[in-house]
Amino acid sequence: MDKSVFLEDLDAFAYREVLASGEAIVLIPVGSLEQHGPHLPLGTDTILSSHFAEGVARRLGGLVAQPIAYGYKSQQKSGGGNHLSGTTSLDGATLIGVARNLVKSFLNQGVRHVVFINGHFENYQFLYEGIDLALEDLGIKPGAEQSVLLLSYWDFVSEDTLRQVYPGGFPGWDIEHGGVLETSLMLHLEPARVAIDRLVDGPAAVLPRFDRLPVVPERTPATGCLSSAAGSSAARGGLLYGQVVEDLALDLASELVREPALAVVPG
Amino acid sequence: MDKSVFLEDLDAFAYREVLASGEAIVLIPVGSLEQHGPHLPLGTDTILSSHFAEGVARRLGGLVAQPIAYGYKSQQKSGGGNHLSGTTSLDGATLIGVARNLVKSFLNQGVRHVVFINGHFENYQFLYEGIDLALEDLGIKPGAEQSVLLLSYWDFVSEDTLRQVYPGGFPGWDIEHGGVLETSLMLHLEPARVAIDRLVDGPAAVLPRFDRLPVVPERTPATGCLSSAAGSSAARGGLLYGQVVEDLALDLASELVREPALAVVPG
Amino acid sequence: MDKSVFLEDLDAFAYREVLASGEAIVLIPVGSLEQHGPHLPLGTDTILSSHFAEGVARRLGGLVAQPIAYGYKSQQKSGGGNHLSGTTSLDGATLIGVARNLVKSFLNQGVRHVVFINGHFENYQFLYEGIDLALEDLGIKPGAEQSVLLLSYWDFVSEDTLRQVYPGGFPGWDIEHGGVLETSLMLHLEPARVAIDRLVDGPAAVLPRFDRLPVVPERTPATGCLSSAAGSSAARGGLLYGQVVEDLALDLASELVREPALAVVPG
Amino acid sequence: MDKSVFLEDLDAFAYREVLASGEAIVLIPVGSLEQHGPHLPLGTDTILSSHFAEGVARRLGGLVAQPIAYGYKSQQKSGGGNHLSGTTSLDGATLIGVARNLVKSFLNQGVRHVVFINGHFENYQFLYEGIDLALEDLGIKPGAEQSVLLLSYWDFVSEDTLRQVYPGGFPGWDIEHGGVLETSLMLHLEPARVAIDRLVDGPAAVLPRFDRLPVVPERTPATGCLSSAAGSSAARGGLLYGQVVEDLALDLASELVREPALAVVPG
Amino acid sequence: MDKSVFLEDLDAFAYREVLASGEAIVLIPVGSLEQHGPHLPLGTDTILSSHFAEGVARRLGGLVAQPIAYGYKSQQKSGGGNHLSGTTSLDGATLIGVARNLVKSFLNQGVRHVVFINGHFENYQFLYEGIDLALEDLGIKPGAEQSVLLLSYWDFVSEDTLRQVYPGGFPGWDIEHGGVLETSLMLHLEPARVAIDRLVDGPAAVLPRFDRLPVVPERTPATGCLSSAAGSSAARGGLLYGQVVEDLALDLASELVREPALAVVPG
Amino acid sequence: MDKSVFLEDLDAFAYREVLASGEAIVLIPVGSLEQHGPHLPLGTDTILSSHFAEGVARRLGGLVAQPIAYGYKSQQKSGGGNHLSGTTSLDGATLIGVARNLVKSFLNQGVRHVVFINGHFENYQFLYEGIDLALEDLGIKPGAEQSVLLLSYWDFVSEDTLRQVYPGGFPGWDIEHGGVLETSLMLHLEPARVAIDRLVDGPAAVLPRFDRLPVVPERTPATGCLSSAAGSSAARGGLLYGQVVEDLALDLASELVREPALAVVPG
Repeated sequence: MDKSVFLEDLDAFAYREVLASGEAIVLIPVGSLEQHGPHLPLGTDTILSSHFAEGVARRLGGLVAQPIAYGYKSQQKSGGGNHLSGTTSLDGATLIGVARNLVKSFLNQGVRHVVFINGHFENYQFLYEGIDLALEDLGIKPGAEQSVLLLSYWDFVSEDTLRQVYPGGFPGWDIEHGGVLETSLMLHLEPARVAIDRLVDGPAAVLPRFDRLPVVPERTPATGCLSSAAGSSAARGGLLYGQVVEDLALDLASELVREPALAVVPG
Repeated sequence: MDKSVFLEDLDAFAYREVLASGEAIVLIPVGSLEQHGPHLPLGTDTILSSHFAEGVARRLGGLVAQPIAYGYKSQQKSGGGNHLSGTTSLDGATLIGVARNLVKSFLNQGVRHVVFINGHFENYQFLYEGIDLALEDLGIKPGAEQSVLLLSYWDFVSEDTLRQVYPGGFPGWDIEHGGVLETSLMLHLEPARVAIDRLVDGPAAVLPRFDRLPVVPERTPATGCLSSAAGSSAARGGLLYGQVVEDLALDLASELVREPALAVVPG
Repeated sequence: MDKSVFLEDLDAFAYREVLASGEAIVLIPVGSLEQHGPHLPLGTDTILSSHFAEGVARRLGGLVAQPIAYGYKSQQKSGGGNHLSGTTSLDGATLIGVARNLVKSFLNQGVRHVVFINGHFENYQFLYEGIDLALEDLGIKPGAEQSVLLLSYWDFVSEDTLRQVYPGGFPGWDIEHGGVLETSLMLHLEPARVAIDRLVDGPAAVLPRFDRLPVVPERTPATGCLSSAAGSSAARGGLLYGQVVEDLALDLASELVREPALAVVPG
Repeated sequence: MDKSVFLEDLDAFAYREVLASGEAIVLIPVGSLEQHGPHLPLGTDTILSSHFAEGVARRLGGLVAQPIAYGYKSQQKSGGGNHLSGTTSLDGATLIGVARNLVKSFLNQGVRHVVFINGHFENYQFLYEGIDLALEDLGIKPGAEQSVLLLSYWDFVSEDTLRQVYPGGFPGWDIEHGGVLETSLMLHLEPARVAIDRLVDGPAAVLPRFDRLPVVPERTPATGCLSSAAGSSAARGGLLYGQVVEDLALDLASELVREPALAVVPG
Repeated sequence: MDKSVFLEDLDAFAYREVLASGEAIVLIPVGSLEQHGPHLPLGTDTILSSHFAEGVARRLGGLVAQPIAYGYKSQQKSGGGNHLSGTTSLDGATLIGVARNLVKSFLNQGVRHVVFINGHFENYQFLYEGIDLALEDLGIKPGAEQSVLLLSYWDFVSEDTLRQVYPGGFPGWDIEHGGVLETSLMLHLEPARVAIDRLVDGPAAVLPRFDRLPVVPERTPATGCLSSAAGSSAARGGLLYGQVVEDLALDLASELVREPALAVVPG
Repeated sequence: MDKSVFLEDLDAFAYREVLASGEAIVLIPVGSLEQHGPHLPLGTDTILSSHFAEGVARRLGGLVAQPIAYGYKSQQKSGGGNHLSGTTSLDGATLIGVARNLVKSFLNQGVRHVVFINGHFENYQFLYEGIDLALEDLGIKPGAEQSVLLLSYWDFVSEDTLRQVYPGGFPGWDIEHGGVLETSLMLHLEPARVAIDRLVDGPAAVLPRFDRLPVVPERTPATGCLSSAAGSSAARGGLLYGQVVEDLALDLASELVREPALAVVPG
């Protein structure tokens, strides 16, 4: 089991050998438990960010930590809203605390780089704050050997991929919740967990340019999805996954690996 | 002075008359004290959000509260980074606390709607969390009479305006820090506070698609601006300001005012 | 996939049907990422509590939520200590926050009973506090329909089982870290994740009756285990697992299920 | 604009020149948004502390930062109480957080001395705590080059001035809320913001020697003022302002400036 | 023991009889562990506030809870400073938390009035905040049956007493730390705990009108006292104690007791 | 008074002499204000832990600080529950804060070892967390001169003593609340504070192996005690107290004192 890329599978002594190299990279997937319409499971964001982390770890020679499986509150403009059953969230202080603790624990153990792979839009700023506070706690400043990276996987989708996945035009990241991107990725990576027959087509949600609280529930479509997943396919998911993992691994290798010969570990 | 739209100018008895109508709207500008290059003042974000709040308040019949003048930490991808002198920031918990307290105070007094007008990108999620926690504290749920709105003014710039302000193509909101938008608005609204002769032209910053902490300082251009302000003009600022205030006021009137005959108070 | 006992596999609409019964029970496994000697993986506590939760859920008709995969700091007297690489921990405030948020989210959605199945000794009091604060937030008082249960699975090991698993006498729960109980359970449930050839025999650790901080590192045995795992076997693990799941399911059924006819769902 | 004493007006490069001297002093006014009777505006405390900070900065060669415009909860014995509409307050943790963050930000940038000029009685201890925690965070101890000062402007009113301003005898600082001191200062500094015709005369409030919570609302006079402002005049305000600014500037110069030749910058 | 005025001496059933009357008053002394010069013990503030609480409880028919024996950080202007060994302090958040928890616990049990008797200057605002937050948690608003009072015992020293205790003129409360007031009270109440032969005479400290942090240690006199205790006597202590307890009991009786016939319980 | 083992009795100069030795040990008793049935006072836990601390301090040459007199919430399985009047508790964050502040204060003053003597089961983990955070704040790591110890006094009761105190068999620590151990100790140490005639005999409580919240109140016996105190005696209390103090003092001497010749100070 000591060949696993998953940290939970390693024993402490095998893990310490990795640390001893001084080059250990730990990737932490971050997702949510959130409604994703009638055709996708509640765990979609965690499942997807875990797959991206695994793909990158195999190419990069890193380790994948247990995911942060609960995320910040779903907002109506990006996830339909926190009032929808199935959506199970952490408040800001708690998510900040989780990120801060994990960064401190891993860097104190001697991990060289920690990389958060985010798969739930609303998490980003709270993860950033947790990282920043951890580095202040540890006294790590510009020029240090150790670092922490934070990214959302969709920021690595190329223009070219977008055109192929959305031949009719890309509707925008803000309403990509339970839409073609996530559905296609799930069809490619976890087809048994998609109930494609329950997919409901329909026009994209049109939400105001402001957030209003308390939410006006009827502004979220009945499906809970903000854009239609019609047009999703495993092939498009494969294209998305392959391109993003490739780009992510290249970017991280060039940023983090001292000898940037990209290691490719077969899945 | 009781005709002022600025809450700090009203005496308590004049303010209570507004509350007594049951329709009081309070707008809170949110900005930052942050480096904005050699040609714009540190207070740019607060100055601009205050002007937008004032413009909207005059049309809508609302009151402008004192701004939240310090914002969340500047991030390298959107503001150059928090390591740059002049940038003076609050951490996440504190900004959440400020928003939460103000919402609770105003709604407890009987204000019907509180509207946050944000002018600093990094603030948004922390303001959202503060609002959400305040409503939980107060037990305000969907269907309530009172509400809180949160928006960033640039989300109201129309496509048409963008084309006129950026005839060479819009470089993207992420690197609009000390660029054409903010500089033009300042030239229109506060020309004496702009040192246009100190403006430095140059290519837009190209930043990675991830956040890295601690930052690599040299990735921020020497000016601290992420895109060039060349091409800024008071005319473009006037266009931006006029269109955004108009759209904002229309949207808010239709969302918040029971009898949506838009009041227009001359500046 | 809607037959899964794992909440992350359900879609929101299938989950809402469960909620609509008014009898939904959600079990949350809680573990740690912690060194467990050279023969057990870092994820042992999370893996075991997840298996217990799954076993109980199948018999009880409940749902298993994503585990809390990182736990409170390992203490020298019960886990060897937080200074040992591989041990990756949350502080008290953060673990309290995670438990508090999950309880609030699930009970707000209409879950009738939330059950925390703990597998890491040090977590207990912080989970308790999180639950207590959540109920205060929600105003849930004695006599309410909804409730939260908290337990550690080892408290359900019977005297009879103990005698069979430890024929030479039970050394005490306090030093059962990486010992016969956990190793036998892993051999039964996840044999591929145990490196039984790396097991190191030796006398049990003798630790003072006080906690000392900072720890005296040499008081923890080199293996990181506090008692020997010699004598572990899959058969003993099977005995432990079967008896505990049976007793747990019976106790929870009698406590929580209105019509206590114990549902038995085949694994 | 780079001659401004207001930090928000400086651009980052002009500000960095000040920092480069190693002698930068930043003054932070702290006030409140609080009812001050029918004749004074809600912003009185912030307006006054800002004027004192400006006056001192001009003499001392310092910079004035954006004020902390919302203060700690008004207490019945010193401000009439937090239940009075118009009073918009921060709780203790938030005000502590604001002060802590500002001190850390400014000292990290290289400011040599930060001076809080308080204008709202209830703020003092929370500002003190924020400063103390910031210095602990930064590891700044007795003997350090950098320091933070905290003061309330009324502590610098001389006995002689008191006699002139209150020829009938000084009623005590505790009930000086919306009274002769604040009204006279406003008449001197911001006459357009005072509605002197709305001033209500009457006996001073007599409050118990304890705080009672929840408050007994009727113990606060209907005006919200704890002592009468009758006898206020711009002349008395000018006397107060002149004497306090002079003494404050002298004290701070002798405490903070290495070469204590008092710089006098014309307003 | 059930005749004791000390809550710690009552058993739960005797205490519940008091609660059942609906008129229970609990007094909580608040002090500090703080240097008080060479002649007074570190516990002076807690000892004195406990004696005042006991005296009042006997007259009023109340119960005295265990004191809050550690206080907020000593400030140089009122206690010499927190850098002096012997001074052992809580930060603001913790003291707020202690007060908030005690108020919630006692009011939830059915205590009608909680009274904090403060004996350490720096505590006041943090106690106030703890009380205010507790009442918000409990939803207790003006007009409620239950209340919380907060006072410092020295605010009940009459002008007449002051003249007798300080025939040479009262130096001011701000520098009354280890001076005539506290020493006389200790000589009256706890003579065995005073080392009057170690009393050091000398001029009163002259401290600036601002707080400076980090402190300039040499500004605190070597004794740690801010004014001389010369002139202290048991007789003056007796006068102070008797007058203050009398006035306090009268004020509280008239404020809190429904049938204000003052109960006098012999000591 | 400078011969007292109680820190509150020492003056600051006498205390500084102890610190100057470099070997100062401060013991902090931790208890609760909690119902202990009809025969024991609410302060039992604090009274007992204070006596143990005093006994150990006399033998060891240490100082006893003021107790932490309020503890964490009583849990039904170990103390009957927090819903029982008389039980007056702190939440987790506050108790963590108290411990953290005291450790920081004492270690900053130069105390070499701080020892928490716990007498209330539910406190333990929160004290541990407070200690751990304080050491992180101070940067104290393995190998340091200074340390903090944490223990519950009952963990030092020997098997032999148990047999003598419970000739009919020991019922288990979990239900020892208001039972033979506490009652016997009180009869030995504070007989005037025990109402032995109010003792109610009866079978031990049988509580589930899980915690349920909100509690089911009727599961706690009417007395509030979890096991009967019948069989308690001053003699058994004397045996318990003598053996535990002896063992505690020996263990601490060997752990903490450089020249482990056990000092025995006559009571």
